[in-house]
Amino acid sequence: MAKDKKLVEAITSMDTDFAQWYTDVVKKAELIEYTSVKGCMAIKPAGYALWENIQHELDRRFKETGVENVYMPMFIPESLLQKEKDHVEGFAPEVAWVTHGGMNPLQERMCVRPTSETLFCDFYANEVQSYRDLPKVYNQWCSVVRWEKETRPFLRSREFLWQEGHTAHATEEEAQERTLQILHLYADFCEDFLAMPVIRGQKTEKEKFAGAKATYTIEALMHDGKALQSGTSHNFGDGFAKAFEIQYTDKENKLQYVHQTSWGVSTRLIGGIIMVHGDDSGLVLPPKVAPVQVMVIPIQQRKEGVLDKAREMKEALAKAGLRVKMDDTDKSPGWKFAEQEMRGIPVRVELGPKDIEAGKCILVRRDTREKLEVTLEEAPGKAAELMDIIQKDMFERAKAHLDGHITDVKSYPAFKDAVEHKPGFIRAMWCGEEACELKIKEDTTATSRCMPFEQEQISEVCVCCGKPAHKLVYWGKAY
Amino acid sequence: MAKDKKLVEAITSMDTDFAQWYTDVVKKAELIEYTSVKGCMAIKPAGYALWENIQHELDRRFKETGVENVYMPMFIPESLLQKEKDHVEGFAPEVAWVTHGGMNPLQERMCVRPTSETLFCDFYANEVQSYRDLPKVYNQWCSVVRWEKETRPFLRSREFLWQEGHTAHATEEEAQERTLQILHLYADFCEDFLAMPVIRGQKTEKEKFAGAKATYTIEALMHDGKALQSGTSHNFGDGFAKAFEIQYTDKENKLQYVHQTSWGVSTRLIGGIIMVHGDDSGLVLPPKVAPVQVMVIPIQQRKEGVLDKAREMKEALAKAGLRVKMDDTDKSPGWKFAEQEMRGIPVRVELGPKDIEAGKCILVRRDTREKLEVTLEEAPGKAAELMDIIQKDMFERAKAHLDGHITDVKSYPAFKDAVEHKPGFIRAMWCGEEACELKIKEDTTATSRCMPFEQEQISEVCVCCGKPAHKLVYWGKAY
Repeated sequence: MAKDKKLVEAITSMDTDFAQWYTDVVKKAELIEYTSVKGCMAIKPAGYALWENIQHELDRRFKETGVENVYMPMFIPESLLQKEKDHVEGFAPEVAWVTHGGMNPLQERMCVRPTSETLFCDFYANEVQSYRDLPKVYNQWCSVVRWEKETRPFLRSREFLWQEGHTAHATEEEAQERTLQILHLYADFCEDFLAMPVIRGQKTEKEKFAGAKATYTIEALMHDGKALQSGTSHNFGDGFAKAFEIQYTDKENKLQYVHQTSWGVSTRLIGGIIMVHGDDSGLVLPPKVAPVQVMVIPIQQRKEGVLDKAREMKEALAKAGLRVKMDDTDKSPGWKFAEQEMRGIPVRVELGPKDIEAGKCILVRRDTREKLEVTLEEAPGKAAELMDIIQKDMFERAKAHLDGHITDVKSYPAFKDAVEHKPGFIRAMWCGEEACELKIKEDTTATSRCMPFEQEQISEVCVCCGKPAHKLVYWGKAY
Repeated sequence: MAKDKKLVEAITSMDTDFAQWYTDVVKKAELIEYTSVKGCMAIKPAGYALWENIQHELDRRFKETGVENVYMPMFIPESLLQKEKDHVEGFAPEVAWVTHGGMNPLQERMCVRPTSETLFCDFYANEVQSYRDLPKVYNQWCSVVRWEKETRPFLRSREFLWQEGHTAHATEEEAQERTLQILHLYADFCEDFLAMPVIRGQKTEKEKFAGAKATYTIEALMHDGKALQSGTSHNFGDGFAKAFEIQYTDKENKLQYVHQTSWGVSTRLIGGIIMVHGDDSGLVLPPKVAPVQVMVIPIQQRKEGVLDKAREMKEALAKAGLRVKMDDTDKSPGWKFAEQEMRGIPVRVELGPKDIEAGKCILVRRDTREKLEVTLEEAPGKAAELMDIIQKDMFERAKAHLDGHITDVKSYPAFKDAVEHKPGFIRAMWCGEEACELKIKEDTTATSRCMPFEQEQISEVCVCCGKPAHKLVYWGKAY
């Protein structure tokens, strides 16, 4: 029992030490394990199943918009990485370099992809000749490597799983449309599927992607009031096309450069799920993304008929379309409850000899701990209903938390006070100068998260320098 | 039209130059493109969609047997790779080495995984403590790297996509059972889903996996009579467990080593599909794995009502559960037919003004080119039926080809004659000595493919050395 016990020992309270709470949860909910490879983690079945559900749903949504999946090499020759000036400056300091193949040094070293713009551009340069070849709307699911100094499971690791979409279009307008289409697809996915509300907006020049003309972002708010950049979508204009000579002949037979976009989300989203919804008993999973939605836990399972009834219940729940498991191990019911809670399984069904005699069972919601006594016949339908209710309630609670943690400020003292005492987003006007972003970061560690699509003029001047300002910006400390 | 034309230009005939035919097909059916990364290919949408279908179906079959998916790091520290002696000898000469992270040299170099036994073992050494933690039946979908000197699309490339299962069991028997269970799962998958018959058997000591106690294999026969090793399943015994100290306490509280297996199939299977089923017009896809099963091709599509009827037909086919597309580009019907054939789409529906007037259309099978005139109402049902028929016929033709290309030989001259003049598998007895395998390979380039599960004593002596022999072996030239 030593190992079972470890799983349900009390974890650090989130109010005491949020970072330690997070680490406790990812380990004790068995999402990841550290490995001998520094900065890289093993994603365990419970963690990978979350990623599979995210993948499956996102992939479906992508394909509805015409996305096709492909696979590019994981290596980038150094000369290829260097073709776009801003891009190489952004990524070269943090790539892993392959210098030998087998026993021999390579003629040219290659990095493991930190992102694949350069590979897709090189590919499109050959593939795209005529306007008939456009648009190209390709995506790949893969892992990428960035040599981070400090790492945290799911949030920042040297290798992580993601998808990266790379598109090429005939016109600037079409590229911009695709950039925003995907940003909204990401936002809707986070809100509908992960019950995670987000702010949609544009990154400042300072915060945009290396090589992009414009970067758009969705920013979520974690339980501790810090922001998590949860997905980005970039419009490259024709910058990469010029560096890689990606040209097509238009209908008038004139040579034109293509306009490109790229966009990605990663296993970071799992970190978001944990930090938006989790509590002091562990993970709390929104039903749509939960690999197991209902856990049937028999009570006094050795008594005659209990396991049979529990098995019947499991089958009835599966028939109702639910992802269900039964815990018939020899652990005590208390341990089983604690494990189910640690793992964030949305509903458990408790079923003992007395319940069976009365033709009833207990449904317990993970998110509110509310208990419902229902008849055995009602249970599957009620559990299915609960999935919708929990999903909706979880989103609404997260939305209320987000809305309740946005502070509007009009002066620099108020800004600094908010960073210190009011965890969450700060909304303040900004003049557009990078100098102010740098000063704010230095003074407070808060960064500009985004210029939201929904702009308002909440004051006339920049919160930092006092000059006239027309841009409303969300600021905050971030992961 | 320059690009369309290129697609349907005649390809090299398979009888003239099979290798060139293969390269023509992978390129012109738009499965892959070469890249600036030597020895690595870009998998294009038509190729990746095949892999997605393979993945989806295999993953479903794995999970039915209790497999759980995980993800391990892509890097292996050199010291970890070296822990199992045979394994490092087998793989070290062909790995890619990462020596720098960002600007700094690494303290210990790491290779990009050529396979992940060492990582899984390192993981299990921590994860497995008690008999309660067993079995572990984990799998991952990922890419691996082997620094091959000569490469061919799908068959041998420096990076390829695959799945690798890695399991740990309490007993030798359970490990052996899992090894064979997966081998048969692979074989059934190839036969049912890819219409590709295989020989099931065990590899000789010489041909087994580096570090394995026993390797089992499925071997398919390509159109040119060469064998393709299409999937392998390894029983490691407790060799890796001892090297990595993976121990558990059994029910009697005694320390025991675990017994392990690993098994994998890769994008190589796509090469198998091409070379088993293809013809001089290009790819021929079995309906179950075909990303597009039916292509609707309107004839004289500018005539009133033609496109409308074609669209209706497309919808009716989709409703019948078929994966269907319509080609309404401005290419000529002849080009469209040739493209559909090159891409191996199992059935096309031809639909012109005269057909519509007569309430009919033409279904054309890709595999036999047989044409069926059916009423518009019958078409969807008939097309769905055709899927089953084509799948079955393709398997039966491939099976007849396999059966017709097996030569039993009892003498060494007959063996050499068969290698030269009778493409296919050679069945011959073998004494069990590696020396004979080496001599046969040197004399003929044929290698031992497997010792089939269905053994027969077709002669008393080894085909090479003449000593008593009890093992029947399939021999052949191989990819």
